[in-house]
Amino acid sequence: MSTGRVFAVEPWVVREPRLDLDRMGQVESVFALSNGHIGLRGNLDEGEPHAMPGTYLNSFYERRPLPYAEGGYGYPESGQTIINVTNGKLIRLLVEDEPFDLRYGRLRRHERVLDLRAGTLSRDVEWESPAGRVVRVRSTRLVSLTQRAIAAIEYEVEVLDAPALVVLQSELVANEQLPSRNEADPRVEAALTDPLVAEQHASAGAGAYLIHSTRRSGLRVAAAMDHEVHGPETAEVTSEAAEDIARTTVIARLEPGKPMRLVKYLAYGWSSRRSLPALHDQVRAALAAARYTGWDGLAAEQRAHLDEFWETADVEIEGDAELQQAVRLATFHILQAGARAERRGIGAKGLTGEGYDGHTFWDTETFCLPVLAHLAPHAAADLLRWRQSILPQAYERAEQLGLRGAAFPWRTIRGQECSGYWPAGTAAFHINADIADAVRRYVLATGDTVFEREVGLELLVATARLWRSLGHHDSAGEFRIDGVTGPDEYTAIVDNNVYTNLMAQQNLRYAADVAARHTRVAARFGVNAEEMASWRDAAKSMRIPYDEVLGVHPQSEGFTSHAVWDFENTPAHKYPLLLHVPYFDLYRKQVIKQADLVLAMQLRPDAFPPEQMRRNFAYYEGLTVRDSSLSACTQAVVAAWTGHLDLAYDYLAEAALVDLDDLAGNSDHGVHIASMAGTWTAVVVGFGGMRMDEAGIHFAPRLPPALSRISFGLNWQGRQLRVEIRPDEAEYRLVSGPPMRLGHHGEAIALDGEPQVVPIPAFDPPEPVEQPYGRAPRPRLPGNATRRTFPEIAMPQAAVVAGMDEELRQTG
Amino acid sequence: MSTGRVFAVEPWVVREPRLDLDRMGQVESVFALSNGHIGLRGNLDEGEPHAMPGTYLNSFYERRPLPYAEGGYGYPESGQTIINVTNGKLIRLLVEDEPFDLRYGRLRRHERVLDLRAGTLSRDVEWESPAGRVVRVRSTRLVSLTQRAIAAIEYEVEVLDAPALVVLQSELVANEQLPSRNEADPRVEAALTDPLVAEQHASAGAGAYLIHSTRRSGLRVAAAMDHEVHGPETAEVTSEAAEDIARTTVIARLEPGKPMRLVKYLAYGWSSRRSLPALHDQVRAALAAARYTGWDGLAAEQRAHLDEFWETADVEIEGDAELQQAVRLATFHILQAGARAERRGIGAKGLTGEGYDGHTFWDTETFCLPVLAHLAPHAAADLLRWRQSILPQAYERAEQLGLRGAAFPWRTIRGQECSGYWPAGTAAFHINADIADAVRRYVLATGDTVFEREVGLELLVATARLWRSLGHHDSAGEFRIDGVTGPDEYTAIVDNNVYTNLMAQQNLRYAADVAARHTRVAARFGVNAEEMASWRDAAKSMRIPYDEVLGVHPQSEGFTSHAVWDFENTPAHKYPLLLHVPYFDLYRKQVIKQADLVLAMQLRPDAFPPEQMRRNFAYYEGLTVRDSSLSACTQAVVAAWTGHLDLAYDYLAEAALVDLDDLAGNSDHGVHIASMAGTWTAVVVGFGGMRMDEAGIHFAPRLPPALSRISFGLNWQGRQLRVEIRPDEAEYRLVSGPPMRLGHHGEAIALDGEPQVVPIPAFDPPEPVEQPYGRAPRPRLPGNATRRTFPEIAMPQAAVVAGMDEELRQTG
Repeated sequence: MSTGRVFAVEPWVVREPRLDLDRMGQVESVFALSNGHIGLRGNLDEGEPHAMPGTYLNSFYERRPLPYAEGGYGYPESGQTIINVTNGKLIRLLVEDEPFDLRYGRLRRHERVLDLRAGTLSRDVEWESPAGRVVRVRSTRLVSLTQRAIAAIEYEVEVLDAPALVVLQSELVANEQLPSRNEADPRVEAALTDPLVAEQHASAGAGAYLIHSTRRSGLRVAAAMDHEVHGPETAEVTSEAAEDIARTTVIARLEPGKPMRLVKYLAYGWSSRRSLPALHDQVRAALAAARYTGWDGLAAEQRAHLDEFWETADVEIEGDAELQQAVRLATFHILQAGARAERRGIGAKGLTGEGYDGHTFWDTETFCLPVLAHLAPHAAADLLRWRQSILPQAYERAEQLGLRGAAFPWRTIRGQECSGYWPAGTAAFHINADIADAVRRYVLATGDTVFEREVGLELLVATARLWRSLGHHDSAGEFRIDGVTGPDEYTAIVDNNVYTNLMAQQNLRYAADVAARHTRVAARFGVNAEEMASWRDAAKSMRIPYDEVLGVHPQSEGFTSHAVWDFENTPAHKYPLLLHVPYFDLYRKQVIKQADLVLAMQLRPDAFPPEQMRRNFAYYEGLTVRDSSLSACTQAVVAAWTGHLDLAYDYLAEAALVDLDDLAGNSDHGVHIASMAGTWTAVVVGFGGMRMDEAGIHFAPRLPPALSRISFGLNWQGRQLRVEIRPDEAEYRLVSGPPMRLGHHGEAIALDGEPQVVPIPAFDPPEPVEQPYGRAPRPRLPGNATRRTFPEIAMPQAAVVAGMDEELRQTG
Repeated sequence: MSTGRVFAVEPWVVREPRLDLDRMGQVESVFALSNGHIGLRGNLDEGEPHAMPGTYLNSFYERRPLPYAEGGYGYPESGQTIINVTNGKLIRLLVEDEPFDLRYGRLRRHERVLDLRAGTLSRDVEWESPAGRVVRVRSTRLVSLTQRAIAAIEYEVEVLDAPALVVLQSELVANEQLPSRNEADPRVEAALTDPLVAEQHASAGAGAYLIHSTRRSGLRVAAAMDHEVHGPETAEVTSEAAEDIARTTVIARLEPGKPMRLVKYLAYGWSSRRSLPALHDQVRAALAAARYTGWDGLAAEQRAHLDEFWETADVEIEGDAELQQAVRLATFHILQAGARAERRGIGAKGLTGEGYDGHTFWDTETFCLPVLAHLAPHAAADLLRWRQSILPQAYERAEQLGLRGAAFPWRTIRGQECSGYWPAGTAAFHINADIADAVRRYVLATGDTVFEREVGLELLVATARLWRSLGHHDSAGEFRIDGVTGPDEYTAIVDNNVYTNLMAQQNLRYAADVAARHTRVAARFGVNAEEMASWRDAAKSMRIPYDEVLGVHPQSEGFTSHAVWDFENTPAHKYPLLLHVPYFDLYRKQVIKQADLVLAMQLRPDAFPPEQMRRNFAYYEGLTVRDSSLSACTQAVVAAWTGHLDLAYDYLAEAALVDLDDLAGNSDHGVHIASMAGTWTAVVVGFGGMRMDEAGIHFAPRLPPALSRISFGLNWQGRQLRVEIRPDEAEYRLVSGPPMRLGHHGEAIALDGEPQVVPIPAFDPPEPVEQPYGRAPRPRLPGNATRRTFPEIAMPQAAVVAGMDEELRQTG
């Protein structure tokens, strides 16, 4: 449970000024370091105490049974779960035979700092042992953004009072004992306990390695370490290795004022195909390169990489220091999640925790990818190449479901559907249109036509075919998509979900356009003019239900006729509702977990005239309880667009602070990557009013009254742009790249070397909107506190039903 | 797989002229004897070979885990499964040290006969042992309809060739080894292997008993046996008992022509509350009474009981000997299932097998109870008293679901919801209206106002409150019931299912009427005039969707806009569809597993003018694939009503022969009790055109051209009626009871001692209707074979997905 802030507010670092054992899980997630390939949770060097030790490799998973009380055709029988691999972060310390353990003795000082520009997590501790010896330990850790297989730790220990014998044990530990998962099914527990089978181990000099493979998924992982010791000449260094543990031990007698410094280099590699010797050589080579680069070299590379990133990516928020920090942390975590994923997915928690079994959902394309397309385009392209690489599984799944084209999995690591509840899994076909939308956004943002032809087209054809076979024309000639689930998981298995239909419409239309641009390649996939016409025709006839009486779009057919949830009689502790009421009751009533029609307005603004957007937004604000962390950022965007600037600001803060303030109460499972991405989107797309289409890029910036300035940058078709929003004017600057034109509140502006300052037009403030009773966002400013709200935002209760924990996932 | 007939066609017996090891499972089910309390599958006396040994006690179950890949609030965590209790049918035989086992030696003759008037299963075997010894074994078995705790076996063995030493071992065996259940979840297998824990055993003289209890459900069962031996004076009789086995051994040297005869008396009792001594004494007392009655006495009682039953219950079918036999077998099994259930439920398979875990569904009220109300009214009343007894669990479930009143379980043994798939379980709220409908039918059939006040009212109030809280008025003032599942399980979680809404409408209205008749008792349940008015108001405003374009009722909101299933491209082996396509695809298309709107027309004919009924029937015939055995009987009724007499006849045959011909391919799991009940309904309600309402009983008989006469009887408000349908006239006879009036094709007819013969009016034959491609019923007469049909009715394939077997259940 979150009580009070755990981090200090500073612009470029996240500082934990003192250790709070009750908040360890949250802090481990926020302090996780990752390059998208390797992820190290912010565990203490000495391993304990911990909330959840975590060392992850992207897509390294074990298979687990998926049991059903009553089975059904097409239910996946086997799931995939990310597993904790060999822990190489461990450096244990003994001071005169007393283990350095913060739970004993006296902690004089304990500070940790995540430095967003250095890309390091550092720690500074002063500790008095139970026997009264005083030591200072300083460590700095990085997961290299430049050397994908590498992590490194600089560890310095110093005795402060008197000479002492000090022993350092730097380790690799496989099959670490983990806190119980408390699984409903003991078979799952069994499958995931000691998942690694030892294959080879060895030690030599100041290093060692361990190679393991998984029992069921048949993946092989190698972890290797090497060390440099800078200390007394008398220091003794030995190494040893056994099946599940390797250890380099340094023994030295230290004098006060003469610290000993250890640099640990760590290399990881995994493969489903490479032989043991090949994998062994791979990690040893990476390790040699890292050692050759040295600690200072690695740290310098890391900073240089980040400097370049921040030059474009930095978002400046003037007038709210907390938000400034939060937006930077969010941007940092997005980079970490995607930077070197290289044709692997991004899990809902990145590599910061085991939440949702490490699965990748639609979050990747709908929330992360639009951000990466502007800040790290290569990473965005690689994510879509990953989707292309799992097309065989998606084709197979579509066939199993009796459909054409590809049916991408709702949740997966390796490409197979791992959802054990089809109404909120298989039925959420919108993920296929979300992938197509991501292709479009990436191509618009980068102008990368090679990618469009080589990667995009295949994805578009596969998904367009899915929609064409999933929908049908009714007798009135409308194209319907029945029996699917949209983004809102409090409504399922419905006809003509507006979000789904609008996204499918765009998918069909865009697939036809791209196929027409690359007819030769399209022909290779068997696409001909007839098929393209059938896509265009379906798109044109797409049914978009509309409630004439209310003047709003129903989220899906009949939605607005359902009973409205009894919000007034739903106390705060009943949220999130899915933990306290059955699905059947949620599904049949007007209550919305997360933006659905509102997300449709964000992603397809062309389909909603402004006045309609306002009416829809007002209607759905009154029904949306935000039991998902994927909602606030979207509500922020559309609130900003419809002129609810204070509300947008509150939602931005909710999205941005979800992990810093542990707003969902489950940050210990990993950070909310999609909400972090949505934070950037809330600023750039929301307050920046950024939209892209074939005609170019447009902005319609507006600053919320509480802020005095927002500045953000982005890549646009080979250019670097920076936009600054001030209360009454906006400034556009072309940092690099050829001259261009952009839209500003509907006006065309030419941009070259000179910054352009243009006024922001005034607007009529809209009628205020209301959230469901008690579900207004936390007002960011005291003056905003006019909405009815519970004193505290509701925290989820402990999972009351076995397996429900999984469902705390707010996204899918 | 069924290939060819296994039974001979005779009017009053079901004869198996020779043993077919491949059909044992089916025959064990058809030959199961039961009185509704005890059920003995038709296993061989010597136990082996068998398909599935089965000895069941109504509601004696073990708990089992219900696992979920992804859990949800309100999901039941624990299921209930009927278990095989102590087997007392066993009589093993050794002839000169060679066990009597039909798989060895030579079987000269093997005949078994289920006698529907005697209520016995008898067997006549001539067997030559591998060593060449020839014996004749004759046995007769009964489960007493008059002495509820008692079964008995008369067993006679005779050597035919030469004197021989013969050993009989008559046993009680607990925790029999059963064929593997092949459960997806090993924990379930574990929970149900050796479920009985020995508590006490003893033997004395020619008898013994075993007392056990279950591990998790905490139920106690006692089985006791005693014997009479009629054979050579030198015969030696000894008994012994151990934890899981008791044995009485008879050794004798037999001479040809001098058979030895053993009578075995068996008594069973179980309780969740009674002490071990109490239960022990109970079964010993029952056993003593049975022995006092003697074999001849028990057999005479049995026949007398059945004579009385058949006097009313017999249905005569002239012109189709096979159907004549099938209808009698069906009526017999309905009696067996309900006769002495005494405030316990009737499982979907009665006590003839373990299909559906022995669970009771809506089949009890909607299919069985209307039959029992006319043939064994006491049994019908007891079934509803059972529902009353599980009201506490139903109240609790409603509360958990956020509803008022009672939410009866979709499937259960003891009252708790045991459905592990809520879209086809919890969401099938119609079961509550089905129970209310059964109350109404029972009260109409019997005029039992005491029951109405003491049992009916409480059930009606509880269910009316459920509906009132489940539905809501929309802005146009219509009362909607959203997000529920109707009888058709190929459509789920829909708004305003017409069946559900019409049944709920009747439930609300009838509850108000009955409460108004018994205001004092109603007041005790807190019912006042305001609440009654709110029920009537909801009933009056009930939304019944209608498709103006097609001129038919959509099964539920939007149903007729869905894509029609591609029947033409669905080959026979893809049926039942649920084993070969995912739910999502079934749910979103127009394809119907089992009568839903058509059942609404059967149960609420008042809501459909005749022309509408014809149009609806024609429309839904084209969509209904009958992947459920609960469909043909309903289609038979409405086909008959709408003038499709040949089609009705085909459907009647399909319902009637489901187990005799193993049409669903799963009769080995137990007989299809509901289809058997539906057989009677197809005759009486379909061809007899029988309807009841507050004004009385009405008939609109019509004979299908293939038959020359149908005669049936029923109890009606303290009277016995018999109705005979001939091609052009009907005859009504009041067998006993005071004079009455009835309706005949809309005309009132007074009936007293004299039979009344009245002409059957002519009618315009309707336009022919069509079934989905390949799904026409097997034509009963060659001349009917004008419909497109596959050469063979489709047989279900072996379950291809773990746990799917369960879903072969055709009912719910």
